[in-house]
Amino acid sequence: MILQPVVNIAEICARKGVENVVLSPGSRCAPLTIAFARHTKLNVRTISDERAAAFIALGMALTTGKPTVLICTSGTAALNYAPAVAEAFFQQVPLLILTADRPPEWIDQLDGQTIRQQNVYGQHIKHSYTFPADLSHKDSIWHSERMVSEALNETIAYPAGPVHINIPLREPFYPAPGEDLVFDTEVKIIEEEPANYSLSEKQVAQLQQEISNYSRILIVAGQQNHTAELQPVLQQFTDKSGAVIVGDLIANLHELPETIRHQDAILACPDPEKLAKLLPDLLITFGKSVISKALKLYLRKYKPKAHWHIQPAGQVADTFQALTRIIRCTPEAFFATITTAKNEANYSSAWNEIESKAAAFLKEYTSEAAFSELSAVARIFESLPTKSNLHLANSMAVRYANIIGLDAGKNVEIYANRGTSGIDGSNSTTVGCALTSSNITTLLTGDMAFFYDRNGLWHNYLPQNLRIVILNNHAGGIFRLIDGPKQQPELEEFFETKQTLDAANTARDFGMNYTACSSLEELEQALPAFFSLQSGAGILEIFTDSKANAAAFADYKQALFKAL
Amino acid sequence: MILQPVVNIAEICARKGVENVVLSPGSRCAPLTIAFARHTKLNVRTISDERAAAFIALGMALTTGKPTVLICTSGTAALNYAPAVAEAFFQQVPLLILTADRPPEWIDQLDGQTIRQQNVYGQHIKHSYTFPADLSHKDSIWHSERMVSEALNETIAYPAGPVHINIPLREPFYPAPGEDLVFDTEVKIIEEEPANYSLSEKQVAQLQQEISNYSRILIVAGQQNHTAELQPVLQQFTDKSGAVIVGDLIANLHELPETIRHQDAILACPDPEKLAKLLPDLLITFGKSVISKALKLYLRKYKPKAHWHIQPAGQVADTFQALTRIIRCTPEAFFATITTAKNEANYSSAWNEIESKAAAFLKEYTSEAAFSELSAVARIFESLPTKSNLHLANSMAVRYANIIGLDAGKNVEIYANRGTSGIDGSNSTTVGCALTSSNITTLLTGDMAFFYDRNGLWHNYLPQNLRIVILNNHAGGIFRLIDGPKQQPELEEFFETKQTLDAANTARDFGMNYTACSSLEELEQALPAFFSLQSGAGILEIFTDSKANAAAFADYKQALFKAL
Repeated sequence: MILQPVVNIAEICARKGVENVVLSPGSRCAPLTIAFARHTKLNVRTISDERAAAFIALGMALTTGKPTVLICTSGTAALNYAPAVAEAFFQQVPLLILTADRPPEWIDQLDGQTIRQQNVYGQHIKHSYTFPADLSHKDSIWHSERMVSEALNETIAYPAGPVHINIPLREPFYPAPGEDLVFDTEVKIIEEEPANYSLSEKQVAQLQQEISNYSRILIVAGQQNHTAELQPVLQQFTDKSGAVIVGDLIANLHELPETIRHQDAILACPDPEKLAKLLPDLLITFGKSVISKALKLYLRKYKPKAHWHIQPAGQVADTFQALTRIIRCTPEAFFATITTAKNEANYSSAWNEIESKAAAFLKEYTSEAAFSELSAVARIFESLPTKSNLHLANSMAVRYANIIGLDAGKNVEIYANRGTSGIDGSNSTTVGCALTSSNITTLLTGDMAFFYDRNGLWHNYLPQNLRIVILNNHAGGIFRLIDGPKQQPELEEFFETKQTLDAANTARDFGMNYTACSSLEELEQALPAFFSLQSGAGILEIFTDSKANAAAFADYKQALFKAL
Repeated sequence: MILQPVVNIAEICARKGVENVVLSPGSRCAPLTIAFARHTKLNVRTISDERAAAFIALGMALTTGKPTVLICTSGTAALNYAPAVAEAFFQQVPLLILTADRPPEWIDQLDGQTIRQQNVYGQHIKHSYTFPADLSHKDSIWHSERMVSEALNETIAYPAGPVHINIPLREPFYPAPGEDLVFDTEVKIIEEEPANYSLSEKQVAQLQQEISNYSRILIVAGQQNHTAELQPVLQQFTDKSGAVIVGDLIANLHELPETIRHQDAILACPDPEKLAKLLPDLLITFGKSVISKALKLYLRKYKPKAHWHIQPAGQVADTFQALTRIIRCTPEAFFATITTAKNEANYSSAWNEIESKAAAFLKEYTSEAAFSELSAVARIFESLPTKSNLHLANSMAVRYANIIGLDAGKNVEIYANRGTSGIDGSNSTTVGCALTSSNITTLLTGDMAFFYDRNGLWHNYLPQNLRIVILNNHAGGIFRLIDGPKQQPELEEFFETKQTLDAANTARDFGMNYTACSSLEELEQALPAFFSLQSGAGILEIFTDSKANAAAFADYKQALFKAL
């Protein structure tokens, strides 16, 4: 017999809108497994490697915007979730983590799969609950039901993130033969109406007055999911004010034609005169992290007079060491209510001019340059299906992608694990996205990130809309592109970490299509079939040489400096 | 320029006897990478997947008995160490974990690979230090040097375990061109003379008197590494006292001919009369965990009058719910100083009689039974090279192995991750053992554990003495062997979690020999070559059917009950 309050966890999750559940097999978590698997409103999948399972759940929560439930057994299973939990915490993705545990009397008694699970995610979790071990008193039942509602509410309250319930379970773990599981229709639910983070009339009046002091406004958008609401409001604001908006790919503003997208190229320009023309007097930011190192270094060096950051709640980062004011509302509310007089016309034209130059240069350069990772990424971006998803892996894939940028009109939604910028879960996160989206979902990754997370493909749910592009240079190629390590004798063994694998056997293992390319011609020939909807899940592996990539990258930078 | 106190960490480690260092590539950890890689007394290897890296370090510390140093970059790298850190904590294995971090002012500023690393291992670490970020004051230098000595001393102070130093690092990360790294010969070292956990004369007298009240003494050894000192002392004690000694494989007492090793079989006997004869009046235990569930359940049900546990220091588990006295000395000290009069002769003979029966039964049964995992393990044990290492993976591999048991004379040292009993790091731990041992090092594992930790083989240090035996039933076969899940409709998808891989492609990827067997004849033919020293690293994959294994296991139990 499984205790009713444990069965009720599944019911409360279903009532509160949970759709997807990722569980990993285990004995201690059997009551949860059975309750969730038997609930007809929940889509439950089982993934054996908990590290991959947690990133898959993260990918699902990213595309659906709803909390995904993770269930694992006791012991190190819970610790294998930790990298994805930290990513969810910093990327603000709603996850509800249910870890089965031994009851308190059996902790530290040398029984198998028993660790100290309370607060096991330390500072990388919004809240960590302990489910009551004894459920005989009626207040414990109230406690247990209230806890599940509270935890789910917390996963989506701004800023969204992971919440943990540790669940001590005693035997029996299974229903008796013939016994039915009954989901309690009277289960307690607490709904939470979310906060409406808007500005008061007084605040609007004051900000309105202050903003009129500035005439060179730069808006920088950090990482955010694509939203339908923000774009028109932003467009209206910049149209009226002449403010400039800069967005990395992960800001998902590339459908806005006005968005400056080649800041990585532009701000690497070594001419201080040109750079000075781009300097804002007011910097307005929103969203999470920024990829472009050039942008970060530029704004840290050339400081604006004021920096306003718009963020409804939570700790605020001073990314550019320039922060002067925090505004507690949504960017939608801010840009819909605040207006300002037309900015200096030559400010936006300075940005637009150099953006056009950079865009034209990149188009021409990558179409003519020798085959390298940079030119390969440009080709891939041209072939990306419209209305598709693109996940960018760390570390070089996301940088190449941000250099190239996407034109408006493709409607590609961008995902990237930039909460912690790890290479540890890109395959899995993309699989999670693909499983919960009907669009083609592409991962652009390097060989290190791909093989690191091979277990993201080790399960029985291969999504046919999944496409993986691997930039395989048989090493952590980034170390040859940045200044410090490339001069060290330790470069090959201890930084690049040469690795010999290609993905052919992996594709065979997991029943995926596989195409290898070593030239631009091969790549161009392969792309149409690879991205066609009919092809099914596939891997496209692009082989380049890490030394040649480094040379190509140096050549690109030189040509860029000349062009700007 | 790398700061001298950071360079000195490598020097202090070398002076204090560290031999092996496992690092994972990264930019933030570059100063540590360079300092350790350039130190001529340290053997440094680089492993890309930090989860695997940490288990490899664990394996090295297990075979060498010395602290292994782990080095990783900032961000989720540190979290990927967590499963192995927890295993090291509960298995009491010395690891020094050096995690590079951003300096404190850059935490929570949305920079890449930045999490909250202080105390990131929570309750699964002996101590967590923060290296000084500012090293301009001379007291900070004293602090930094003292910290490394202290941390290393703590890794091996009883009970041994993992210790963490989080190291905030500012740029520059690399020596200037032409700049040499100088290891400081005047570096501060603190040596620690370990405690001598012996009994006082008064304690000896008192224990001597008390022990004389008992005449049915049962000694149960928990998990421990093989030690040369304990065996003769134990043998002398049991010879004189007639006490019975029971040891699972992981107790590493199978070279002692007197050791009862078939407790898993014996205590599953359903005849209460036979079981009553085996009941001790005094139970003496030492070491860590016990595998045999039958032994645990037996002693929890049939409680001895007294239970003494010998453990020099640290928290003591009440594994059998019978604990009455904790004795703070080493088992060597206890058994060398305490003597007692001859126990009831029929006590040891009851155990020895049933042990002989069980051993004879198992030998005959497994030689005649149809091909199954149980009979396969028996064959493998017959062929194991003498003076070799054997790592037993969770969950069924270690259980089958403990049922079969090893005879004295093979000199096989047993390792198993029974600190947390996870399936997450057996390949890696075995690789770590193999890299630091000149003996053949075999892993006995299942398909789930093997594929979970495939990245344990993803590096450039494949040890030629490595042998991996995979019991592949294409599922988590344990769930068909235990009572609860096998009756549930969720069995195949959510408990067993059917998986389709075999290891042929993996062997190809990593350049290992590969042999597949599906019958006893094929297995017997394959074993001699597989285990020969000349063969080099190899995988032997034994295919069985999970349903047939379940039937064979049920048949084995029935036959056993009849035989006992």
